[in-house]
Amino acid sequence: MAGTAVQHYVRNAWYVAAWEQEIEGDAVLKRTLLDVRRILYRTGDGSGYILLQDRCPHRFAPLSMGERKGDAIACAYHGLEFGAGGRCTHNPFSGTLPGHAVIDSPVVLARHGLVWFWPGDPALADPAAIPDFSFLEGQDVWRRRSHFAGDYELLADNLMDLSHVDYLHRRTFDTAGTHHRSTHTVSDGEGGALWNTWRIPEVRRFPVLEPHFADEAPIDQLTEMRWNAPASMMLRISWLPGGGSERDARYTMVNPHIITPETRTTSHYFWTCAPDAESEAFARAVFEGEDGPMIEAVQGEMGSSDFWAMKPMILKGDVGAVRARRRLIRLRHAEAGLQAGDEPTSG
Amino acid sequence: MAGTAVQHYVRNAWYVAAWEQEIEGDAVLKRTLLDVRRILYRTGDGSGYILLQDRCPHRFAPLSMGERKGDAIACAYHGLEFGAGGRCTHNPFSGTLPGHAVIDSPVVLARHGLVWFWPGDPALADPAAIPDFSFLEGQDVWRRRSHFAGDYELLADNLMDLSHVDYLHRRTFDTAGTHHRSTHTVSDGEGGALWNTWRIPEVRRFPVLEPHFADEAPIDQLTEMRWNAPASMMLRISWLPGGGSERDARYTMVNPHIITPETRTTSHYFWTCAPDAESEAFARAVFEGEDGPMIEAVQGEMGSSDFWAMKPMILKGDVGAVRARRRLIRLRHAEAGLQAGDEPTSG
Amino acid sequence: MAGTAVQHYVRNAWYVAAWEQEIEGDAVLKRTLLDVRRILYRTGDGSGYILLQDRCPHRFAPLSMGERKGDAIACAYHGLEFGAGGRCTHNPFSGTLPGHAVIDSPVVLARHGLVWFWPGDPALADPAAIPDFSFLEGQDVWRRRSHFAGDYELLADNLMDLSHVDYLHRRTFDTAGTHHRSTHTVSDGEGGALWNTWRIPEVRRFPVLEPHFADEAPIDQLTEMRWNAPASMMLRISWLPGGGSERDARYTMVNPHIITPETRTTSHYFWTCAPDAESEAFARAVFEGEDGPMIEAVQGEMGSSDFWAMKPMILKGDVGAVRARRRLIRLRHAEAGLQAGDEPTSG
Repeated sequence: MAGTAVQHYVRNAWYVAAWEQEIEGDAVLKRTLLDVRRILYRTGDGSGYILLQDRCPHRFAPLSMGERKGDAIACAYHGLEFGAGGRCTHNPFSGTLPGHAVIDSPVVLARHGLVWFWPGDPALADPAAIPDFSFLEGQDVWRRRSHFAGDYELLADNLMDLSHVDYLHRRTFDTAGTHHRSTHTVSDGEGGALWNTWRIPEVRRFPVLEPHFADEAPIDQLTEMRWNAPASMMLRISWLPGGGSERDARYTMVNPHIITPETRTTSHYFWTCAPDAESEAFARAVFEGEDGPMIEAVQGEMGSSDFWAMKPMILKGDVGAVRARRRLIRLRHAEAGLQAGDEPTSG
Repeated sequence: MAGTAVQHYVRNAWYVAAWEQEIEGDAVLKRTLLDVRRILYRTGDGSGYILLQDRCPHRFAPLSMGERKGDAIACAYHGLEFGAGGRCTHNPFSGTLPGHAVIDSPVVLARHGLVWFWPGDPALADPAAIPDFSFLEGQDVWRRRSHFAGDYELLADNLMDLSHVDYLHRRTFDTAGTHHRSTHTVSDGEGGALWNTWRIPEVRRFPVLEPHFADEAPIDQLTEMRWNAPASMMLRISWLPGGGSERDARYTMVNPHIITPETRTTSHYFWTCAPDAESEAFARAVFEGEDGPMIEAVQGEMGSSDFWAMKPMILKGDVGAVRARRRLIRLRHAEAGLQAGDEPTSG
Repeated sequence: MAGTAVQHYVRNAWYVAAWEQEIEGDAVLKRTLLDVRRILYRTGDGSGYILLQDRCPHRFAPLSMGERKGDAIACAYHGLEFGAGGRCTHNPFSGTLPGHAVIDSPVVLARHGLVWFWPGDPALADPAAIPDFSFLEGQDVWRRRSHFAGDYELLADNLMDLSHVDYLHRRTFDTAGTHHRSTHTVSDGEGGALWNTWRIPEVRRFPVLEPHFADEAPIDQLTEMRWNAPASMMLRISWLPGGGSERDARYTMVNPHIITPETRTTSHYFWTCAPDAESEAFARAVFEGEDGPMIEAVQGEMGSSDFWAMKPMILKGDVGAVRARRRLIRLRHAEAGLQAGDEPTSG
């Protein structure tokens, strides 16, 4: 019934902080994640990562202004040093280490080239709950990050309702209404996943499909977007002989679309593309040139208003996005100790 | 006694959205009016205008990012189309039109070259209540709009107390204290107008007056500022033989000074000038070079404070401006269902 | 028990508005002090200063847009004039001066080259309470002001805990841990002063000391920071023969470090340096190149949060800064009529 205030973000969930490749050697990466300014660096033996709030607990100096001393970081203001677990490892004012002064330091670990962190209760941080992005292992792709001035749920909405491709991306993808004649289903998957599936009959014979579909028979496209809370998505597109089943897929593309909130109105977007400049430029033209401006304009319209309080018009294509949004509300309620039917209070 | 919260703006009133000439052909004009981002365009048959909130009710995309489809506008995000009255005219997700999803679309009509709109109850929108700017009809003038970073009431104050001309505009108008020796009266006029009148004896013999006052006898100036709520003003200046009555006027100039709130701290200012570059440059030097910086500085001093809460010093010259401000308060109270004596609550 | 709300600033205290030399002749200096935009100018006979809020009480025009008329300033909007004590000295609308319309005009006086003002109750403004900066009299130094985007208490913290010199200034001062081996004491002085003293044994033989310490015997350094509320500090550094007492000082440097709040998150910093470009450049490198960025970063971390609400880690070196902060809280409580033990409410 009672419970604490509902937080803006789900706390007990895995989020992506960075691509591993974004951290060069001993460098310290500054990044704001879920409204908190953080620093991220690799331990000296290369065995793991340290993720700290970018703030000395003494006088609130950003630790990113300091420098590494082994696996610790020294504050540039008065010389205090902090390391693994956010604990103080050196106090120039005394031989005693102030044990109570611990910097917020979420559980962090690398998997499949991504650095994941868990902002909630460390005791609940189960690595097995990290969504499966094992397909990235060994993929010859370029790993990239974009920055959008939009709330992470708006980015997820965009990816969970691909009908926008027919309109927003008509100049880049030229799908000519394809998505609007698809059969659309949404279903639950393992590990809390939501699967958003579009079956599109008789699509265009894209050049990349030629080797796989020599005959002139129709080609069906199966587009699947797998979502895991908070906003880690995998897009899989398969092409099959017309009327065939998923097992008949002759060609498949798989990509990550992982969103991490930077602040309440800005987001990090982790994606990949084929390893050449033309593919990257095309991806940026779509993501940063079409989706980005639209999402940022929507954010501009919304300001700091709550999405549901603005009474959006719900259409058939929204079912996946709406289920994802409702699941996040349930998770946030559960973390606040509220029953399912309770009204959330904004956190 | 009770009533609803007092709104910041009078709702049941005619406001100017634009000069008709600002909308070229089929173009869609974006403009923020009374805090609402709007689009304005002309119907295909040229018979009228459509004014919509610039926001798709589905996912809040700005419709101005889309494109016209006949008299409708198509959203660039998911293809929904909206037209007259803000009604949905095409839904790509279904054969059914979502009748409940209507975009805010105020009554709009053109008169005397100006596009007027009524943000309040459409049933009350009486075209006969539009203030008379018929003098604009056929006037060979340039029609212009300026943008000021000041509340619309500050701009009205400026126009309703022309004594500032002796100080703020002394370098441009060189009136040398003329206004401070005028006889000043304020009176009610037809249709809710306030007439602010200054009779100034023995003014300078401006070059423009030479053909009309061949003799050396004194010339009197009658300056009249007609105000209609919320801030639509007409300035009429007449020159008469010294001691003569209004009917003896030998030369008269009439100009519109119409203010529409853009936001609570910014305004649109619609004005005209003689149809040559020198006259426009002079008008801009006065309005944008002298009034604008002053009003914007005053707005900077006020921030988001209420004018009356700052306890302004009231002087004799303020009587017209103060009566206009009080009338707006009464209108806003009346719209909120409050009695005349009730205290307003800020909206 | 009850009392009024606690103000953000101590009101009944002397603050520095400017160096006298900052006001050239009849010029009007604009400066924001304790959140209030003000103008400061010298009276025509050179006998004193006038400090006014930079706002005409009629229509809130900034008086700094106007011009001086003798010892008064004329508003550029409608010609009202105001002078000593903030009183109206000319009203173009009437022969009557509106005696109730008085501009806020704190007590102001010059001493030792600094213009001091008292924002609180004029009856309590005792010139004898101005902290003693008489050493400035006749000092051949350059008088300077820097602007920091940080709260004035953060600047005072910085000066009251000189241990940061070993870290933040290690590239400029090269003290190599000197301060961390000092003996540090804090004590009360006359007139409400706090004395923060560091005795540092066997310091480096700086070139400037050579003439005074010809022998090779050890040199001790005595660093004293005298603080008076709100944030007027004097730094005195004396060098003595190792183990000697203060009376044996052979060489002494004295400097002002006076902070005045501009707003809640920005400050004016008044300082001096030796009268040559190299000394000024060095001082700026330290103050603006090292302290400034750190304090501004800390302010960025704090945002509008209260320092104590952020639960800073308190270390041994903080004793002086913490005592100064507590004294300011007591003064603010006292001004609000609260008892010592009452909880402050933020103002």
